[in-house]
Amino acid sequence: MHNTIEKATGKLGILTPGLGAVATTLIAGVEAVKKNLAQPVGSLTQMGNIRLGKKSENRNPKIKDFVPLADLHDIVFGGWDVYQDNVFEAAMNAKVLEPMLLHAVRAELEAIKPMKAVFDQSYIANLHGDNIKQAATKADLAKAVMDDIENFKEANDCSRVVIVWCGSTEIYLEPSAVHQTLESFEAGLRNNDPAIAPSMIYAYAALKLGVPFMNGAPNLTCDIPALMQLAKQTDTPIGGKDFKTGQTLMKTILAPGLQARALGVKGWFSSNILGNRDGYVLDHPDNFKTKEVSKLSVLEDILQPESNPELYGEIYHKVRINYYPPAGDNKESWDNIDIFGWLGYSMQIKINFLCRDSILAAPLVLDLALFSDLAKRSGMSGVQEWLSFYFKSPQTETGLHPEHDIFKQLIVLQNTLRQLMGEEIITHMGQDFDQDLVEASL
Amino acid sequence: MHNTIEKATGKLGILTPGLGAVATTLIAGVEAVKKNLAQPVGSLTQMGNIRLGKKSENRNPKIKDFVPLADLHDIVFGGWDVYQDNVFEAAMNAKVLEPMLLHAVRAELEAIKPMKAVFDQSYIANLHGDNIKQAATKADLAKAVMDDIENFKEANDCSRVVIVWCGSTEIYLEPSAVHQTLESFEAGLRNNDPAIAPSMIYAYAALKLGVPFMNGAPNLTCDIPALMQLAKQTDTPIGGKDFKTGQTLMKTILAPGLQARALGVKGWFSSNILGNRDGYVLDHPDNFKTKEVSKLSVLEDILQPESNPELYGEIYHKVRINYYPPAGDNKESWDNIDIFGWLGYSMQIKINFLCRDSILAAPLVLDLALFSDLAKRSGMSGVQEWLSFYFKSPQTETGLHPEHDIFKQLIVLQNTLRQLMGEEIITHMGQDFDQDLVEASL
Amino acid sequence: MHNTIEKATGKLGILTPGLGAVATTLIAGVEAVKKNLAQPVGSLTQMGNIRLGKKSENRNPKIKDFVPLADLHDIVFGGWDVYQDNVFEAAMNAKVLEPMLLHAVRAELEAIKPMKAVFDQSYIANLHGDNIKQAATKADLAKAVMDDIENFKEANDCSRVVIVWCGSTEIYLEPSAVHQTLESFEAGLRNNDPAIAPSMIYAYAALKLGVPFMNGAPNLTCDIPALMQLAKQTDTPIGGKDFKTGQTLMKTILAPGLQARALGVKGWFSSNILGNRDGYVLDHPDNFKTKEVSKLSVLEDILQPESNPELYGEIYHKVRINYYPPAGDNKESWDNIDIFGWLGYSMQIKINFLCRDSILAAPLVLDLALFSDLAKRSGMSGVQEWLSFYFKSPQTETGLHPEHDIFKQLIVLQNTLRQLMGEEIITHMGQDFDQDLVEASL
Amino acid sequence: MHNTIEKATGKLGILTPGLGAVATTLIAGVEAVKKNLAQPVGSLTQMGNIRLGKKSENRNPKIKDFVPLADLHDIVFGGWDVYQDNVFEAAMNAKVLEPMLLHAVRAELEAIKPMKAVFDQSYIANLHGDNIKQAATKADLAKAVMDDIENFKEANDCSRVVIVWCGSTEIYLEPSAVHQTLESFEAGLRNNDPAIAPSMIYAYAALKLGVPFMNGAPNLTCDIPALMQLAKQTDTPIGGKDFKTGQTLMKTILAPGLQARALGVKGWFSSNILGNRDGYVLDHPDNFKTKEVSKLSVLEDILQPESNPELYGEIYHKVRINYYPPAGDNKESWDNIDIFGWLGYSMQIKINFLCRDSILAAPLVLDLALFSDLAKRSGMSGVQEWLSFYFKSPQTETGLHPEHDIFKQLIVLQNTLRQLMGEEIITHMGQDFDQDLVEASL
Repeated sequence: MHNTIEKATGKLGILTPGLGAVATTLIAGVEAVKKNLAQPVGSLTQMGNIRLGKKSENRNPKIKDFVPLADLHDIVFGGWDVYQDNVFEAAMNAKVLEPMLLHAVRAELEAIKPMKAVFDQSYIANLHGDNIKQAATKADLAKAVMDDIENFKEANDCSRVVIVWCGSTEIYLEPSAVHQTLESFEAGLRNNDPAIAPSMIYAYAALKLGVPFMNGAPNLTCDIPALMQLAKQTDTPIGGKDFKTGQTLMKTILAPGLQARALGVKGWFSSNILGNRDGYVLDHPDNFKTKEVSKLSVLEDILQPESNPELYGEIYHKVRINYYPPAGDNKESWDNIDIFGWLGYSMQIKINFLCRDSILAAPLVLDLALFSDLAKRSGMSGVQEWLSFYFKSPQTETGLHPEHDIFKQLIVLQNTLRQLMGEEIITHMGQDFDQDLVEASL
Repeated sequence: MHNTIEKATGKLGILTPGLGAVATTLIAGVEAVKKNLAQPVGSLTQMGNIRLGKKSENRNPKIKDFVPLADLHDIVFGGWDVYQDNVFEAAMNAKVLEPMLLHAVRAELEAIKPMKAVFDQSYIANLHGDNIKQAATKADLAKAVMDDIENFKEANDCSRVVIVWCGSTEIYLEPSAVHQTLESFEAGLRNNDPAIAPSMIYAYAALKLGVPFMNGAPNLTCDIPALMQLAKQTDTPIGGKDFKTGQTLMKTILAPGLQARALGVKGWFSSNILGNRDGYVLDHPDNFKTKEVSKLSVLEDILQPESNPELYGEIYHKVRINYYPPAGDNKESWDNIDIFGWLGYSMQIKINFLCRDSILAAPLVLDLALFSDLAKRSGMSGVQEWLSFYFKSPQTETGLHPEHDIFKQLIVLQNTLRQLMGEEIITHMGQDFDQDLVEASL
Repeated sequence: MHNTIEKATGKLGILTPGLGAVATTLIAGVEAVKKNLAQPVGSLTQMGNIRLGKKSENRNPKIKDFVPLADLHDIVFGGWDVYQDNVFEAAMNAKVLEPMLLHAVRAELEAIKPMKAVFDQSYIANLHGDNIKQAATKADLAKAVMDDIENFKEANDCSRVVIVWCGSTEIYLEPSAVHQTLESFEAGLRNNDPAIAPSMIYAYAALKLGVPFMNGAPNLTCDIPALMQLAKQTDTPIGGKDFKTGQTLMKTILAPGLQARALGVKGWFSSNILGNRDGYVLDHPDNFKTKEVSKLSVLEDILQPESNPELYGEIYHKVRINYYPPAGDNKESWDNIDIFGWLGYSMQIKINFLCRDSILAAPLVLDLALFSDLAKRSGMSGVQEWLSFYFKSPQTETGLHPEHDIFKQLIVLQNTLRQLMGEEIITHMGQDFDQDLVEASL
Repeated sequence: MHNTIEKATGKLGILTPGLGAVATTLIAGVEAVKKNLAQPVGSLTQMGNIRLGKKSENRNPKIKDFVPLADLHDIVFGGWDVYQDNVFEAAMNAKVLEPMLLHAVRAELEAIKPMKAVFDQSYIANLHGDNIKQAATKADLAKAVMDDIENFKEANDCSRVVIVWCGSTEIYLEPSAVHQTLESFEAGLRNNDPAIAPSMIYAYAALKLGVPFMNGAPNLTCDIPALMQLAKQTDTPIGGKDFKTGQTLMKTILAPGLQARALGVKGWFSSNILGNRDGYVLDHPDNFKTKEVSKLSVLEDILQPESNPELYGEIYHKVRINYYPPAGDNKESWDNIDIFGWLGYSMQIKINFLCRDSILAAPLVLDLALFSDLAKRSGMSGVQEWLSFYFKSPQTETGLHPEHDIFKQLIVLQNTLRQLMGEEIITHMGQDFDQDLVEASL
């Protein structure tokens, strides 16, 4: 199958709606890596290995040496934002990276100026920018975004473009009639249906052009029948929702561990403090609602209370995000987990994660850009479930249950790559370390 | 293959060298479960499910309904200890379980009186008991243990017996000449070779009789060529070392998660406080050494610094166990993990686990007893690597690298059970949620 | 002066509006102490010492042996509640104390049945009881409470009675016209002014009868000119507001320490989880508002940003209370404190307090009852600032600034007792350890 | 009395044995403060206020405006070290302060080169330097140090000099015969008595010249009769031992708070991780012993188990220091405190202090230098107990009990300053906020 994958020749444009903390950390980082000033830690595509064949074969290449991904030197960045700051200014404001590092790539960052954003105050109350597209209808806005993409591609001599949403969390939205078919959606664009969020306009524009679209926020965006249909029509990969960083990352690591050991869970209280723009947006209850829904589903899916009512039938799960300016981008989470063991005796696990939001998110953007480009070149269209590994709330084809367990997600991702390249998939049995041994002992 | 598994008919004797906190918590618990007073939480054999076939088949039975395990009502308990207290008295002293619960099964517990222990002060400086076998040679001691086992089996009308070591940590010991062959070992027994530890005498006695032996402490015990050879000769399953509870359990859950995300690790500091007999024994440096070796190897195996020197080549890993009487059996661990992400930016994870040592260990003893009995009836002999899931320092056939990642260990355990029962093994691809989808999209 | 203090002869009635977790923990505890089953830990009157004279004199009696307090054996308990449960039933429901302990004093507890409560749903949305007084006007309700007090006193042969509010937090209320004078207040009672809260009716009734009233909740209650005036008129001690337990207790211990060292504070984030009735009431934003105001003022008063703007001028202080049923009465707080030192370098203190709400509050109720009775017998009327030690938000005479520093509060309390008994007050200089030394060295 | 205080005219030399992390952080910081680049946070002399007279007078000056202290611009630094690095190099190696800050004061720091140190490997096993004095006898070494001091004073045109020990922790030493009188001590110097530690040689040299000596390590140094006698003879202030920073600082803040509330303490477990030179020295058991003794006495003194055996009679107190290089100078402590309240119910406080060792210590050095100079000019000689505020293990005149409670220590310090300047001492009663009120109410 792998001989059918298109080569990654030419330049790849990575466009992000949102040039805030996450996107600028990504861009500055890639430029620094290109200059050998730092390492792209946290990026599976750049730093991760993949085991192939039997354990005894000892084949364990870097992923980037195994599958044909775009090279970092072939990447060009661009994006949209409601503020006019260029990427250097925005990165300085974000206070994520050291000024010294930013100065080392200053020229590259200053060259990137945000295109005017599609923005609607009713979707994000706590943001106020002035770099905003004006148009009579949402259809016009979509057209303008398509023009942006085409212009960027041409101006930068790109052979391919992908889009990864790095913007803010919009208010909570449930799918409604206008989202059901491509027809109703396009009508909605023309008559300014209020249920069409700005993020949907970006996604629509991307998919019309066959440009992969990955959604890093919990927004509904392309998780609606209309856009899933469009993705299939134009052979375009899509994926989402919400980068899995920080607390939820820890949750999808720890919960499978508790379940593996048949330890019960009575309660899980998660508190967060953060002081960046994301924290400020989420301080508004309507926007927090969107995030909360994304964060709460995780435990239930992993622990499967319906199969284990005695262990997981009564979990009280609560998530709080608190805007706390002294923390800046240093998001900090505190989890208290009430578990019980043998005979119901209770125990507690308390986790304090002093993390950095954008530092954790930036490599995910890079991986999603490179993998969605790979998917496009490999002819994989529609929802890319094998990229669930990267999302808090993985999008699935309608009706399917998402997988949240990060270890199962990783196996799926790796086996997808193996299968794509014509390698045997790995089962941790047989191909794995103990098969011969177990067989011998049977 | 499963039609060759012997039925689990008749009574199963579970004998434990050591009738302290762990063993009495197990025994009292099983008796309470039999009276429907409590649930055997934490036991995979009793509470865990196993998924079979394709996800869409929705087959997810309890493990105990899937493989032919001994029923809890068919179990009889016994053991050896250096103290004369019966199990009720010992359980009251251990202060793990509520007096009210112990009184509810008092008669059953009082009926179990410890057999005289094989003990050697030079192996455990901080224990001082008076219920100890006296004999001229270690060979005589081994013979006495064999007699104990035979007598117990007959007196309690057992069809099978298994042994799980629940005793203390002995001083650190490296394999030497006397441990290399069965011949040299038996000579050593006869001439009281000081390198033959008490735990080895129990293991030898068990294996001579074809009784499975599982090792819950980090002691060398049956992890020597002589006893591995004997296990093969007598078709006996063996396994070890050191029950994976508390801090190490958390470590083997968390480390694979960090590695999955290609996040770097600079340091991992682990501190423990506990106030039970185990803590007191480990307060002696010679005994702590044995434990330390068992605890330290975990990270290196999971993170594979040789494959990822940029991420894991410089880990400073330190483990401390502090005897702190106010904690009693409520072992508490505190981990500080220094990680780094994108461009090398540092972050910290701090985990405070308020656990209960014996509550976490007791269900492991039960599972190991039942699974080693299953292995024996299935004709599996020698080291049972598929039970690595339960151990801090999994014993392997000489020369093989142990697997510490708890998620891979669980897949191996489950696939072993599936294979034993003639079910398809599961790869999280194909049989799993996304195969059709992925194929469709290719 | 002390020879003017009335003797504590006869019985003292302690009445509490609210017979929930705190009050029942107090009552069961005092009964258990009287039977020598437990110790009144946390009670300064019962367990605390007080140093007298010069350090070299070595006089350090128990407070209860120094000042003439009511003896525990002379105390009779009673109270009001919106539920009909007797104190035994209420204590069992509260799940604070072990059933075994409650059974040991069951007869005493069952004998105490709550009088009908004054209640108004609009002041506490999340409580729903059926043991409630009905009357045409608030004046009638006040009269009914006075009758309750008189009847209780007679029925139990009490020579004195005190009241300590142990009920829930009412919605936030600012003082308005009706609260300004006794006249307007009494008119308000007659015409059912909605700004007169149930707690004010209790306080009014108490003060009319000269019964000391201490306020354990953050409610406005007697912190209004009308009732302060009444207290003076009837020579009655009053005090409040809000028992200082848990997180705020820690805050008033720690903040003075940081200030002592001239360490700066940038942010203080306080999160709480608790699962008892108090937590449920506070889950309603209107009731939380009252609590929040009480909790927030603490830092500002201690750190005095106006004197030290460089150190404390920019504190971001946030307090969250989260209802989390798995915690039950085991209130748990997590504080993150962002401080800075030499040259502005930042540091963090994280405090996780696994406390028990009612266990911390019960001894405060006892002390306040005994000390307010002492104050009454000593002729001290109006606001008892020397009892600030016990309150989150100490009530002061109008216009004065409250003292929150627990160490200064303690010195004031102790010096008040010393002065009352004709002992020298202590300055930690001169009378203290280093005077001679310092003088010698000058 | 204050009119007898000598003016602080001319330059003050601050000499430190040890030019490592603490001393270089002090020096660089003072230079940065002089250039208005940063603030001397954590220094009571520079940032702290002192309240004078009645609260209503509203007099609250900065301490430096109240007592005649040397001005920062009049300070000259110097010192001794076993390494030859100048202060800039040493500060860069210490990695406490940002390189950018150090470069801003580079010239000033490079100008300070360490004088050759008095060093003895047998007192500090883990240090290996090459900038060491060679001499036949310890008397010769003392003479050489005196010459250093005199030369420094002259070269830098200083009117006064003080010495603050900022060197490492020596091995544990108990006072022996040679330490008992000045005569035996001087004989010991001449015949190289092994019980005379290097730090004693510095102290002896200082005291001979009438130069104040403050001891920032737990070393015995001047806490011996011989040197206390010498201090009196030469009218020289001395003080020690061991800067109170980090965990012990927290302990002396928190313990008085628990005691104030009559809450019991069952256990206190303190763990530390640090990765600087201090941590490496303390990794040696002989040196840790000295530190441990200094850290352990704190609780006992504050909680007074002899007065409150029911509350504090059974404390299990344990302190651990772990060398953990990833932490660098960012010392981190974790305390678990097992307390009990009403009826003996247990609770826990867990404190995680992410502190910076040298950042906390540097301002203490400054304060001690300035205050000891003030003491000298005020004619106060011998042990300065009023500076106990700064020490983990306050030195007292023989036979007296040290005060550890930081709040009492602060009152003593402030009252000493008030008395020195002829102001009324403050009792938190009477002169304080509630006297009139309390009197009115009596």
